[in-house]
Amino acid sequence: MEKYKKLIDKVENKLINSIGDERYLHSIRVMEEAIKLANIFNCDERKAAIAGILHDCGKFKNEDELLKNAYNFDIIQRDAYSTNFALIHGALGAEIARRELNIEDRDILNAIQYHTTGRENMTLLEKIIYISDYIEPDRNFPGVDEIRKLAYENLDLALLKAMDKTIKYIIDKGYYIHPYTIDARNYLINKIK
Amino acid sequence: MEKYKKLIDKVENKLINSIGDERYLHSIRVMEEAIKLANIFNCDERKAAIAGILHDCGKFKNEDELLKNAYNFDIIQRDAYSTNFALIHGALGAEIARRELNIEDRDILNAIQYHTTGRENMTLLEKIIYISDYIEPDRNFPGVDEIRKLAYENLDLALLKAMDKTIKYIIDKGYYIHPYTIDARNYLINKIK
Repeated sequence: MEKYKKLIDKVENKLINSIGDERYLHSIRVMEEAIKLANIFNCDERKAAIAGILHDCGKFKNEDELLKNAYNFDIIQRDAYSTNFALIHGALGAEIARRELNIEDRDILNAIQYHTTGRENMTLLEKIIYISDYIEPDRNFPGVDEIRKLAYENLDLALLKAMDKTIKYIIDKGYYIHPYTIDARNYLINKIK
Repeated sequence: MEKYKKLIDKVENKLINSIGDERYLHSIRVMEEAIKLANIFNCDERKAAIAGILHDCGKFKNEDELLKNAYNFDIIQRDAYSTNFALIHGALGAEIARRELNIEDRDILNAIQYHTTGRENMTLLEKIIYISDYIEPDRNFPGVDEIRKLAYENLDLALLKAMDKTIKYIIDKGYYIHPYTIDARNYLINKIK
């Protein structure tokens, strides 16, 4: 990652402080995965690197800090976030990236914002970040290898399978299902068939 | 069903003509189930009977006729119906019940309209018709007995389990998931917990 040393140096300390070592290392792996996929699918590699390393920048390890920031940035009131804290960090991350890391590119900010829920009609970059987060090398759950392989062959189909698995998992856990995930999945079903 | 002989006599021929014998018999079973549940949960028994027998009145056995009616009644353009014909018949049924069978009670019409998708914050009658359709005695699929029993103990929980099972089934089939089903299910999760 010599090519992105400057980017890494710029955000490393801030990220480690807010999201912790483990999640920082996960972010590096997502960045590396996103760079690979960007090259396969002709997406802007640099955008993929930035969105990849920053995708979890709103996932504060300290919950109080997460909520404080979310209230300050007016994230909590929006949408359905208030019912599920795990859904806050995407929108919060986009705000942090914009305000504190001076990211202005809306496609990068959206890739951060929608990396957990997805949404209807995602951009290529949004898809790459969503799936990179899902398949980065340390991810280890039944079926991940199939989706990992598929991601390099058919990004939409990999995304659909990842979302379908996620929805089923959420149902089994009794969690709130974000409507955007359903929109994203229905859109893909329609596109693929 | 002596008590509802007049109702049955009024709609029997029309229903058999449009939806066929088998679905008519299913409708009678849903009516009977709905009457039982209405008495358990203090819902208006007569409304449950009417909504029960009419819930599938828009499910024309002839697909051309279904589509013709749906276009005439302006159902197709609305919402997400156009992507899944199976989702048309609830909304179409409510229109048929209103226009051709002179049902004016909006709660009955809504119970017909939302019996396949559900929706956020359903009325007691809507819940009873949804679950009666799911558990009537001829329904036979893995898990139905558990939900059948639960329906008489905890209607909301039975509804949630039925919807969760339905969403998983739709995912496995690769069908479109109606957003209203997600709204209904998320609402119940929030209410129950």
